[in-house]
Amino acid sequence: MPNTTEMSVAETRKLVEWAVRLKFTDIPQPAVEKTKRLFADWVFCAIAGAGYRTVDGLKAVADETGGRATGPCSTFVGDSRPPYWAAYINAGAGHVVEQDDLHNASVVHPATVVFPAAWAAAQSRGASGADFIAASVVGYEVACRVGRLLGREHYRIFHSTATAGTLGAAAATAHVLGLDAERTLDALGSAGTQAAGLWQFLATAADSKQVHCAHAAGTGLQSAYLAKNGVTGAHDILLGPQGMFAGMSRGTPDAGVLPFDGLYEVDATSFKYHASCRHTHPSADALLDIITENDLAPEDIERVDCGVHQSALDVLGPAEGAASVHQSKFSMGFVLGAIANGRSAQLADFSDARLTDPAVRAFQKKVHMHLDPKVDGAYPAKWTANVKVTTKDGRTFDKFMETPKGDPGNTLSDDELLAKWHKLVGYAGASVNVDKLAKELLALDKRPTMDGLM
Amino acid sequence: MPNTTEMSVAETRKLVEWAVRLKFTDIPQPAVEKTKRLFADWVFCAIAGAGYRTVDGLKAVADETGGRATGPCSTFVGDSRPPYWAAYINAGAGHVVEQDDLHNASVVHPATVVFPAAWAAAQSRGASGADFIAASVVGYEVACRVGRLLGREHYRIFHSTATAGTLGAAAATAHVLGLDAERTLDALGSAGTQAAGLWQFLATAADSKQVHCAHAAGTGLQSAYLAKNGVTGAHDILLGPQGMFAGMSRGTPDAGVLPFDGLYEVDATSFKYHASCRHTHPSADALLDIITENDLAPEDIERVDCGVHQSALDVLGPAEGAASVHQSKFSMGFVLGAIANGRSAQLADFSDARLTDPAVRAFQKKVHMHLDPKVDGAYPAKWTANVKVTTKDGRTFDKFMETPKGDPGNTLSDDELLAKWHKLVGYAGASVNVDKLAKELLALDKRPTMDGLM
Repeated sequence: MPNTTEMSVAETRKLVEWAVRLKFTDIPQPAVEKTKRLFADWVFCAIAGAGYRTVDGLKAVADETGGRATGPCSTFVGDSRPPYWAAYINAGAGHVVEQDDLHNASVVHPATVVFPAAWAAAQSRGASGADFIAASVVGYEVACRVGRLLGREHYRIFHSTATAGTLGAAAATAHVLGLDAERTLDALGSAGTQAAGLWQFLATAADSKQVHCAHAAGTGLQSAYLAKNGVTGAHDILLGPQGMFAGMSRGTPDAGVLPFDGLYEVDATSFKYHASCRHTHPSADALLDIITENDLAPEDIERVDCGVHQSALDVLGPAEGAASVHQSKFSMGFVLGAIANGRSAQLADFSDARLTDPAVRAFQKKVHMHLDPKVDGAYPAKWTANVKVTTKDGRTFDKFMETPKGDPGNTLSDDELLAKWHKLVGYAGASVNVDKLAKELLALDKRPTMDGLM
Repeated sequence: MPNTTEMSVAETRKLVEWAVRLKFTDIPQPAVEKTKRLFADWVFCAIAGAGYRTVDGLKAVADETGGRATGPCSTFVGDSRPPYWAAYINAGAGHVVEQDDLHNASVVHPATVVFPAAWAAAQSRGASGADFIAASVVGYEVACRVGRLLGREHYRIFHSTATAGTLGAAAATAHVLGLDAERTLDALGSAGTQAAGLWQFLATAADSKQVHCAHAAGTGLQSAYLAKNGVTGAHDILLGPQGMFAGMSRGTPDAGVLPFDGLYEVDATSFKYHASCRHTHPSADALLDIITENDLAPEDIERVDCGVHQSALDVLGPAEGAASVHQSKFSMGFVLGAIANGRSAQLADFSDARLTDPAVRAFQKKVHMHLDPKVDGAYPAKWTANVKVTTKDGRTFDKFMETPKGDPGNTLSDDELLAKWHKLVGYAGASVNVDKLAKELLALDKRPTMDGLM
């Protein structure tokens, strides 16, 4: 096993040196505006998710194993906690309703791992909204570029949001703490060597997806504090012979994706429109177009064939049964059943009652996925689908969905975002003034601190 | 990707069903006696390690990110904390001097991941010494059997103490909490999907080894509390198609190692005699025998050839430079240099001063490792070495070390253990009455609670 050489750390170091230099005033205005909207979108997701059973579980673990400690950091469960536990709980809350953002090329949900860590660190240090935005932009770059590096072979087994996300959370926290390049490399080393998250939970609809986010945000934050306190990490954690790529991926890494290239990953991040797994969105949009344009009722349809990318088969396949509300969002048949029967796959369309809806369950059986080479070739840079609907009277309708709704090329307008946020808060029955909070969040860059948002 | 079938969970379930039924009174007396000695040995290691820089770092992270919370659980840094943070800090303290135990066949250091979690859980629940011992025996079984399952291909890249150890810590905590088989499977699922630890840190002598232990003990403990609070995990986390073996090992798993087979893993665990990496011990013992039997001075020796197993090359190779005190314990040349020059590789033989000892550095250059097929074939069931010493006057001495000192087949007597513990405490300059504490620890099974040991 060869010793690490400085050469193989070079690309990681370029990314880190860019990150430690980045100031809020360096960030182009469109990227600032996008980051504020990504944060706002995540906050409303977390408000909607705060009452979920799994979040109750994370809160109980924080209480029982962390000593019910209070601290300066806001949580979505109605209290203030020390930074580790705030990041831990908020990360789970932000992801559980499956409406938080997604970065296409890395298949990482960056918001729910980067923001909870950056926010907790910012509150513990009294950092401004502008500083929080700069730290979050750094977190997105690191999480998404590490996710791109680890690639499709990693994602086949590992939940990249959890693994790459740990480094994103560490980088964002390190930026808030003002760590230099050497200490930031230590933080990434500690984060990478603690990064984990396997897809196995999907097959039995277990609760690990939120645990992964809690772990990534909490452990990433810890890693930056370890570095601050002189605990070193492997600087070559990504590409070294006993590092993340060697242990958790296959093939040949493309280290060229690591250094910042002038294109901000926040700008390449999608808002989620439907409340289901993003792998279902291109097909859902295609079916929605077909049934709307041709005025088809669910009972008119004989079968739906969805040409998808391989990762969709890997992730959605084990969940096809839709045994729980959470798993039903990962079942292509169930999601398309909701679209066909109500022309909607929003949060309220997934519920215990819906699990036993005979119309959705009947439609679910009509849906078939297969690998489409064109769709797979474009992925993950582009998330497309090739959908064919065959009616009982023998007609066929084909739709190639090039750019699903919410994608950077087909983004949600501010009005559409506000409508989504109203739905999220309404679904949770939370007593939140959506318009007022949205306005505050979209003025985040003017806030002197990150306190008082909840 | 096929759905998980109950069949592939079957072997994990057998282990868990045995674990939840195990009571202290079921454990044979020799295994009880061994467990008490393993715990005592770890306690003295942790006393020696408590003042180390990396442990200071873990404590600072607990303070700064966990809110300086107090709790019922003893720590080696002189305070009482909530269970997560006590497990986190104590795990790092117990490992940093590299004198804690090792389970041969799994290449796992079980003490420093199982005991801190079991102890913290026991104190938070008021469990007795006997209950603590039963939980620890369960933790050893799970950590060691999972380590055996993941195997050599896993250990090539991953630090098995960290990965398998997370499940051991979870299982021990689950036993203290009295979780049933389904909840214990949930705990192992959450532990496995958060298990991590890469060897990359070794190449630059970074501090991750202690961070790994802190992470494994703390996250394992959290995983059991997650299960207690209704957060589910993948029951097939070990052998499922997107589980630990699939993602973090290669080849074909031998699921038959998982169920308890009547042989306790505590009985198969070695005490460490030398203060260096266990991969150096067989060669160190062989060289010690050769120089003692033939009265060789270091300057008599031209070269030393160590025939070792592949894992020794993988783990020791990157550390050969001995750039720090910690890394010097992983450098075969440096360790044998200490043996040749002082006939000892105890804790006090590794220091900043020793790093610049010209005699040790000169001897280091004479030491060469190579893969020995016989040694490699016996590993990891047996840790052997084939050492050849060539003197300047042309003599050669060969020694095949079959059973290194501290191995279950060549264990340390109670007198030898007590002498080791005195050295550990003396090295730290701690004000601890070693004889009194040793006596208390060897009467652990009579203690009504686990309080008051520190």
